[in-house]
This record gives sequence, structure tokens and C-alpha cells, in this order.
Amino acid sequence: MHSFVYNVPVKVYFGQNQLGHLGEELKRYGTRVLMTYGGGSIKRSGLYDTIVAEIKQAGLELFELSGIEPNPRIDTVREGAKICKEKKIDVLLAVGGGSTLDATKWIAAGACVDHDPWDFLDRSKLAPVEKALPVLDVLTLAATGSEMDGGGVITNPETHEKLGRIVSPTLLPKVSFLDPSVTYTVSKYQTACGSADILSHVMEQYFNLEPDLYMLDCFMEGLMKTVIKYAPMALAQPDNYEARANLMWASSWAINGFITGGKQQAWSCHPMEHELSAFYDITHGLGLAILTPRWMEYCLDETTVSKYVQFGVNVFGIDSSLDPMEIARQSIKAVSNFLYDTLGLKRTFTEIGIDRTHFQTMAKRACNNGTLPGFKPLKQSDIEKIFEMCL
Amino acid sequence: MHSFVYNVPVKVYFGQNQLGHLGEELKRYGTRVLMTYGGGSIKRSGLYDTIVAEIKQAGLELFELSGIEPNPRIDTVREGAKICKEKKIDVLLAVGGGSTLDATKWIAAGACVDHDPWDFLDRSKLAPVEKALPVLDVLTLAATGSEMDGGGVITNPETHEKLGRIVSPTLLPKVSFLDPSVTYTVSKYQTACGSADILSHVMEQYFNLEPDLYMLDCFMEGLMKTVIKYAPMALAQPDNYEARANLMWASSWAINGFITGGKQQAWSCHPMEHELSAFYDITHGLGLAILTPRWMEYCLDETTVSKYVQFGVNVFGIDSSLDPMEIARQSIKAVSNFLYDTLGLKRTFTEIGIDRTHFQTMAKRACNNGTLPGFKPLKQSDIEKIFEMCL
Repeated sequence: MHSFVYNVPVKVYFGQNQLGHLGEELKRYGTRVLMTYGGGSIKRSGLYDTIVAEIKQAGLELFELSGIEPNPRIDTVREGAKICKEKKIDVLLAVGGGSTLDATKWIAAGACVDHDPWDFLDRSKLAPVEKALPVLDVLTLAATGSEMDGGGVITNPETHEKLGRIVSPTLLPKVSFLDPSVTYTVSKYQTACGSADILSHVMEQYFNLEPDLYMLDCFMEGLMKTVIKYAPMALAQPDNYEARANLMWASSWAINGFITGGKQQAWSCHPMEHELSAFYDITHGLGLAILTPRWMEYCLDETTVSKYVQFGVNVFGIDSSLDPMEIARQSIKAVSNFLYDTLGLKRTFTEIGIDRTHFQTMAKRACNNGTLPGFKPLKQSDIEKIFEMCL
Repeated sequence: MHSFVYNVPVKVYFGQNQLGHLGEELKRYGTRVLMTYGGGSIKRSGLYDTIVAEIKQAGLELFELSGIEPNPRIDTVREGAKICKEKKIDVLLAVGGGSTLDATKWIAAGACVDHDPWDFLDRSKLAPVEKALPVLDVLTLAATGSEMDGGGVITNPETHEKLGRIVSPTLLPKVSFLDPSVTYTVSKYQTACGSADILSHVMEQYFNLEPDLYMLDCFMEGLMKTVIKYAPMALAQPDNYEARANLMWASSWAINGFITGGKQQAWSCHPMEHELSAFYDITHGLGLAILTPRWMEYCLDETTVSKYVQFGVNVFGIDSSLDPMEIARQSIKAVSNFLYDTLGLKRTFTEIGIDRTHFQTMAKRACNNGTLPGFKPLKQSDIEKIFEMCL
């Protein structure tokens, strides 16, 4: 069991009708606000008008950057950083899901340096992130957990790279507004992808053979059961508050560092998925959903089976008296059923137009031309095999 | 489901050999440090010497206040506040368990005002707590969770009052050092009382009929299973790191506000126990252990049984096909067995020298001469009956 530092000073306003606190919270950090968002969905839902009214009422000066794309691009970050410098922005307000939040964090860091923001993420440079403008956010999608972590993932289409980095607490949002009812209008497809993403975040940390804190394993099982219980409910009744609330709070706690509890193992499916998104610009949660059951299948052997047993019994209620390998196989099947049948996500690369073309390159990059030191260490050849299983 | 604000900006260094960071953390807040502690146990264990060495090495000026008692008294708080003013203290370092931490928080607040610190707690005054000196701590006992909450309970022996108040984030520690190996020397009795205290904190919040966040119920069940699994292990093997680590981290998360998740119900056993401690100066966890099963028994009826069923099945693995009332009774029995047989705590007031003498007064005070609005609202007569059941 490794020692660790827990430090998550994000203030979260959870629930409905909390935006009345937005003005007072922004004011703590200055008067010139850059609001960042994606497409027009926040305008259609009325959220945009509510937020603008709060900002005006607080007497703050508002600037805007819209059009932040899913899998946000480095050019957008560059543009945002430039606006911050030119307009002397004091504080950023991200309104959106993980993409908008991630881009905004790197804009906030980029605003404080003279170099290209890509230098923060470029593996050959990894420029230090010493400071960043304060970021607040209004979350509109339960998925990435960016509202409570210090990380952000950015795509560079020119180099086909999608790279992330966690710099905590510098890039942690100061304040996050989480209103489950804001997610009533999230489409079935995005709800499904978001749920797959939350589940994957927990599984990346749960599938681990390090000696561990049992209390965190219990919590992780609770988080996974929460996704399994409420994602179908949110799909069937998009305005079910209980379902949206549980998914939203689970998304934050799946990745804010608490459940890591000192574990030092690297993640597996996320680095593989980032290559898919970088080359094919697919939705992150969908890529994870296709990869996860194949990764589970590939990693299963006598040395790892105990974790599958714990998972299958405690999360899916599989009969603990069965043979361990049988429990493991049933648990992989249960995950597949959840992702493809219950959530209705596509189950193969072929269905979403991905073929073998870039397997070699993507696999090489996913393991950084070495070994991905996750649950089961994976080399380029292993990752290629997992990709093959996804066809 | 109520809206809520989650805001726990406590930085926690968890694990062994983290005290090397103590100097740098104290320095952020100033140079004149008042270290507070209880008896001589930290001198016998060597912890005192380690901490003093770190403080000296950081070039800080050290002042001390020792002798903070279990169930800390208002006179000690007054003395500490006076020292802070006279010595122009910048930052407080509490080294101990919940009693030392609680006293130190109120010293930190008392240092910033001209009035008597009891005015903060006196129900007829409740003086505002607008600021406090920064508090850091080195925890030596897994129990109260004071290391991650903004509360503190103080006894006034003159008035037989034991009163607490939560003022978050003003009274939150800035940094807490949690080293499970420091608790190896905690006695069996204190380990048992601390475990009963953690369990009670969770039960006070779990036994609740408000519509709730399922993910938090799962986590609470995990916390309770953690105490039930590891308390006996810590009793049998005081230097079992895994057991001490799980108990220690569970103690923090049982009461830092996360599991409350917007629930507005007041606690029940704690207000009753505070009266016992105020009149008889008993160990807090022991008082809770005697009260809890009787409170469970008293509150059980057709309107509340569903929560006992959830508890019994998910925490103690009681057969879910049984009659609900039978599951409830078995779950009360399971809690009793855990507290009295497994932990070895005394099971009656009579055994610890408490008789009917003050039942009326204590009951009247516990409900503040009205109704205690907990899991089942309790009036003075209800509380007297629960006290009777404890004889």
C-alpha cells in the first residue's frame, strides 16, 4: 500500500437552482470573465441565457469563446489563450461537458505562458505548468469527471495525437456547478457514452493487483453498481432526477483521485482509446466501450483471475461458488451485455468504420513504443491483438 | 433529494514517512507555531521528538500547550486562545486524536476574537465564527474524523454542557497528516471506542428515510463493512498496517460531509451521548456503543423497517428472503454482537456507573427541550425510555 496525498479543493454546488451563486463565486477571482462553450445546445436549453443574466447581474464583464469541439483541438486552446492575453481575462467559466472543461483548463494554463500551449502536452517537451488562470464550470454532461480533476486531454489533428496530462491542483476547477436537471436534454447516445466512460474510469483503477484499501474497493463497487443501475433509467426516462443525479455525482468521484488511494498502476483502456479518437475522432466513451470487454478477455489468466471474481460477485451478483474462471468469463459477458445491449452502443470497430490501417501505429503510440504498465503490462503486439479482437 | 455544497479543501498526507512535508506546510502559514497535545503518549512513542525536529529544521519558532484532556474543556480553549494572542501565534499544530483537534479548532477561533470562546458554543449566544488561525494536525487516533471536518465539541464542566458546532470551511484543518502506523500504540480499549465512533457516524447518516443518492448508500455500507472487517484485526494485531490504514481513512470519510450528500436529518445518538459525557466524562465511543442498539430497537416500526432491511442485508449479509421485521431484529443483534462481543465494550450504563439520577435533565437537554428531529423524531420522554433501556 503506497502513501499518497489527497487534495481536492474543488467547491461543488450540487443540485437544482444553484446558479444564483455563480456571480459571487466568479467575483472572488476578478471581473473579466471568459465563458467557453461548444455548440448551440446551451442556447437552445436556455442555460446560456441564465448564465449570462447571472454574470451581468454580478456586474462582471463577459467575453465568449464558442465552438469548442468534442475531442477539443489544440488550435482552440491557442485561440482561447490568445483571447485571455488580449482581453486581460481574470477568470474562465467553462459551460459544457468534458471537452469544454478540458480545453478551458489548458487555455487557463496557456494564458500564463509565452510558449505554444501544445508544449505542455508534447511528450518530448512537457513544459512545466506552474500557474493557470482560475477556472469555474457549469457541467452539462455526466462523463469525464473533468469537473473535479486536474486533467485535460487535447487533440492535435496535424500529428494525429490525443494527449492528456494531470496537473493537480493547478488545473483543478475552483468551483463546479453540477445540476443533474441540466443533463435531461443529453441525448440517449451521449448518455450511453458518458456512462461507459464513468464505468471505464472506475474499472481502470479497480482492476489492480496492488495491496489496497478495502474501503476504496467497496466504494468502487458502489460506483459501478450506480452506473449499472441508473444508466438504463436515464435512457428510459431522460428527466429522471434520481438517475441523472447519481450518474453525475458518480462521474466526479470516479476520477477525482479519491479511489486511486495511492495505487501507482497506469491505466490501460484510456491510452488505447486516445489513439482511436486521435485517428478517427470517435466519441471517447464509445471507443472505451468497444475496447473494455476485449481488454478484460485479453488480461484474464491465473494471475489476474481473483480480481475478476471479486468484480463479478460484488458488482454483478454472480454466484461465488462457481469456478473462478467461470465467474471471470461471466463477468466479462455481463460487462458486454451492459455496454452493447443495455446501453445500445456499437460493439465492433467495423461497425464504426475503423479497420486495420492504423493498428500498428496506434498500438506503438499507445504504449509509447515500450510497455503500457497497467493491470497486465501490454506491449505493442499485445495492443494490436486487442485491436484485432475489436474488429 | 436536497441540493448541497461539497467543499472539503483539506490536504491529507496519508501513509508512513510523510512528516518530512510538515515544515514546508507549516511555513505556508507563518513562522510562530503553537503545538497542542494531550498527555505524554506522543513523547513515549517518539512522535513528539520527530515533530519538534521537523519544526526546528524548518526554522520555525515553537510554542506548546500540553494537557488537552479527553472531552476537552472550555478552560483549555481559553488558555490556548490567550497563548495565541500573547505569543502572536501564526499557525496551530494539533498532535493527537479528536479531543486535541477539536480543542485546537476552537483555540484557533478564540484567538481571533475578544470575547469568551464559550460564546461560540453557548446555545443562547452562538457568536459568529468569522475567522480562525490556520490549523494543521498530526492524527494519532482513528475515531472522530475531526481531521477532515470543520466541527469541534467542547465540555463546560461548570454547566455540565458538552456542545459542538460545525463551521465549515472556517474550522477545517488546512493539512492533516494521517499515518496509520502512528496508531499501532493505541490501546485495545481506545481502538474499540474509536471503531464504535466511526460506525456511529455512518449509522447516524445512513439511517435516514429521505430520498437519497444510492451511490452514497453504497459507500456508507462499504465504510461500515470496513469497520466491521478491520476493527477486530486491529485489536488482534495492533501493528497490522492494512487494518489501521482502513480504519483511519474510514474515520475521515465517515464525517467529512461527503456521505451527507444533502440529507438534512439531524443526528440522534450523538446528542444523547454528549449529555452522558457532559455528566459522567465517559469515552464518547463507549457511550455511543451502549446507546446505538437501544436507539435502533426504539426506532424500529413499520415506517422505518425498510432501512434496517437494507442495512442488515447489505452490511451483515442477513438472508434477504426473511420477514422484514426479522431481518431488522437480526441486524440489531448483529450490531450488539459486534460492539459488545467483538469489540469487547461494556453493554450497560450500570456497568460504567451511570444510574437514573440525571436521566430527566440529560434527556431534556439532548432534545433541547423540544424534539430531536432525527431518523425517528425523539422527545424528552422517548430519550428517557432509551436511557432506561441502557441500564
